[in-house]
Amino acid sequence: MTLTADAGTTTLDLGPARALTCRECGHQIPLAAEFACAECFGPLEVAYEFGNITRAQIEAGPKSIWRYRNLLPVPSDVDAHPNTEPGLTRLVKTDRLAAALGVKSLWVKDDTGNPTHSFKDRVVGVALAAARQLGFRVLACPSTGNLANAVAAAAARAGWQSVVLIPSSLERAKVLTTAVYDGALIAVDGNYDDVNRLATELAAEHEDWAFVNVNVRPYYAEGSKTLGFEVAEQLGWRLPDQVVVPVASGSQLTKVDKGFRELIELGLVDAKEYRVFGAQATGCSPVAAAFKAGHDVVTPVKPDTIARSLAIGAPADGPYVLDVVRRTNGAVENVSDEEVVEGIRLLARTEGIFAETAGGVTVATAKKLIETGQLDPDAETVLLITGDGLKTLDAVEDKIGPRATVPPSSEAVRAALAD
Amino acid sequence: MTLTADAGTTTLDLGPARALTCRECGHQIPLAAEFACAECFGPLEVAYEFGNITRAQIEAGPKSIWRYRNLLPVPSDVDAHPNTEPGLTRLVKTDRLAAALGVKSLWVKDDTGNPTHSFKDRVVGVALAAARQLGFRVLACPSTGNLANAVAAAAARAGWQSVVLIPSSLERAKVLTTAVYDGALIAVDGNYDDVNRLATELAAEHEDWAFVNVNVRPYYAEGSKTLGFEVAEQLGWRLPDQVVVPVASGSQLTKVDKGFRELIELGLVDAKEYRVFGAQATGCSPVAAAFKAGHDVVTPVKPDTIARSLAIGAPADGPYVLDVVRRTNGAVENVSDEEVVEGIRLLARTEGIFAETAGGVTVATAKKLIETGQLDPDAETVLLITGDGLKTLDAVEDKIGPRATVPPSSEAVRAALAD
Ligand SMILES: Cc1ncc(COP(=O)(O)O)c(C=O)c1O
Ligand SMILES: Cc1ncc(COP(=O)(O)O)c(C=O)c1O
Ligand SMILES: [Zn+2]
Ligand SMILES: [Zn+2]
Repeated sequence: MTLTADAGTTTLDLGPARALTCRECGHQIPLAAEFACAECFGPLEVAYEFGNITRAQIEAGPKSIWRYRNLLPVPSDVDAHPNTEPGLTRLVKTDRLAAALGVKSLWVKDDTGNPTHSFKDRVVGVALAAARQLGFRVLACPSTGNLANAVAAAAARAGWQSVVLIPSSLERAKVLTTAVYDGALIAVDGNYDDVNRLATELAAEHEDWAFVNVNVRPYYAEGSKTLGFEVAEQLGWRLPDQVVVPVASGSQLTKVDKGFRELIELGLVDAKEYRVFGAQATGCSPVAAAFKAGHDVVTPVKPDTIARSLAIGAPADGPYVLDVVRRTNGAVENVSDEEVVEGIRLLARTEGIFAETAGGVTVATAKKLIETGQLDPDAETVLLITGDGLKTLDAVEDKIGPRATVPPSSEAVRAALAD
Repeated sequence: MTLTADAGTTTLDLGPARALTCRECGHQIPLAAEFACAECFGPLEVAYEFGNITRAQIEAGPKSIWRYRNLLPVPSDVDAHPNTEPGLTRLVKTDRLAAALGVKSLWVKDDTGNPTHSFKDRVVGVALAAARQLGFRVLACPSTGNLANAVAAAAARAGWQSVVLIPSSLERAKVLTTAVYDGALIAVDGNYDDVNRLATELAAEHEDWAFVNVNVRPYYAEGSKTLGFEVAEQLGWRLPDQVVVPVASGSQLTKVDKGFRELIELGLVDAKEYRVFGAQATGCSPVAAAFKAGHDVVTPVKPDTIARSLAIGAPADGPYVLDVVRRTNGAVENVSDEEVVEGIRLLARTEGIFAETAGGVTVATAKKLIETGQLDPDAETVLLITGDGLKTLDAVEDKIGPRATVPPSSEAVRAALAD
């Protein structure tokens, strides 16, 4: 995070952000709508010059991710522009789930409470704010579903146009909850990796389109740090011992880690050794496979899982996920689709939280990590539940339903309950 | 709200609540699981003895409805028991919707951010807390959908059993999002009014079941006051000029008004004349019909509308809704199912908020009230959006969708966008 004098000459106001740095070779360029290093094609990341930031300042801020604006690549008046005000979702002490899993101290970060009911509102919030500063007026993305919802909603709220590309096989709920915001929604015959390639092509052709996870990806990705910030603040300004994070592209996991490290660096929490765990569905588990094989590179796969929001077969940040889990003594584990459904149902039954398939992946992976001795049951653990069950009803549909359908008589109800 | 000495002798801890008073004849009884007056069968309401309550006290409280615990029939340690922590949802300044409707200052209270994505989490939160004090251990309800979700989730979180009765014709999403919490969900062949009658019968037979909206209804209903409290606090401790509230049983509307009056009484906001408006779907508009006809009683109807969460043909609190809107110089208006869908789409398109049919009713009714000169376009107005679009996708399904489905090529995307 050291800076060249050069990068400081930009006149863009992106708050504490000062430059983009290549994660591979360290090459640095001024803040711009760039995502790949011109020297080595490595991914670019935002570098900062943080001022003095105190807990009190943050606590006095808005009840949204904008309380952390001085830690994000956004101008200090970011919340003066219409936006969906994501974040500051509940951190729930989940004692009944803890008992079911046999762990001592367990929390769920419940991001179903976000405006479009997934953590994607966070990253899109930051992407929109940065894109506004960078001169864009169209918000775009390729998406596995949740990002589509978040981009379409944020653009509507801001009065921007949106262009959203989705695989044509996407869940009905995720299609409709994108279309309703009345942007340009295009279904593409192909899987997410096809759609993503197409977006990269279109981003090159349409310089006025901010593809949140392509050409403004470095800014977008920083939004996931707020998950880490909130967990720490809501625990009373301290880090948990262990955190379990679902992995698609891998961005979120690496940024939760980055958020934790920044808090330590700035003295906002005490330094401690925490462990980061990644969760994947077996039907799309290229990062787990690389982790288990001891590889540094991730071999792409063709996804086949009900956890469609995590179905990225060629995860851009896969290698960095491996770095984080290895550095922190964590792991990446994977679970079957059946276990995913069981995970959804377990969380709902014990805590009244209905997560989408990605949340089922997280819960089921936590269970497996405990059973295999990888996760310490005596250490304080946080599970990131990043999406809502209402968007993936198909996954549970044939497992659940009314206990009975009866005529309107109390005897019939009693009989049904006695069965 | 004056109290007899007698009522004070109860040993129940329900915070500032002191007795139940009949809304019709004023007869007062000690706090108990009663809902109808023994003298005149009128509905019972909670009476309080409030202590000194300050804005600072409230602001220092939890980020949920429990910040108002000293204004609710719950013990002061209410948040020590596991609950879904509803409330403190966003109050959004909606300038783009305001421009579309031709009003000057418009806000949306966005209750889709609640744990199960409707305002019902508020009333169930209070009902559960009161039911615990009253000795119950089973949470039950008849429901048009949202209440079913909220009761099943709250019971799961608390480790209670639940018994939920729904009309068998309910939306798939509302059925599944109740069933997933694994309580006893029973579908009943009949409409909501049939299910409600059945629940009253069952409540009499099962003294250990807390039917939140039947035998503990006086406590339950108080939860809707928190919508009024939050609007006032989020406006900076002042009341709006006008508020538009969807009406099913009518409870919510009367309690938003009660909340406003309590804030004035306690000196937490300045006294002012505010106007309360009710919103119904034409296919179930018994209260609007009574209002327009100048009647004091509400004639029951057989509901036929896509706004199924509002489909209560025999609204228990209908007469009290009429009292409130007449006293405050408001009105009750109704809109067609087509207008409901247009209302949903207008809110989504302008503000990135996806409401369920009940929210469409509110937006469309506000539009009609403005067009007919009943609502003052120059006065500050708040719309209560009380439920989430993800639960009523059927209502919008054939109106929206992807603009096109294309092969993965950038020319195909460009062609689709040019159409
Ligand atoms: C609900 C949900 N959780 C987690 C993820 C994983 O995010 P990432 O691509 O940052 O690994 C996604 C990605 O779409 C998601 O939709
Ligand atoms: C989303 C929604 N809004 C409003 C209402 C109306 O509530 P009330 O019965 O208090 O009038 C309901 C009732 O079920 C509802 O589900
Ligand atoms: Zn490089
Ligand atoms: Zn009476």
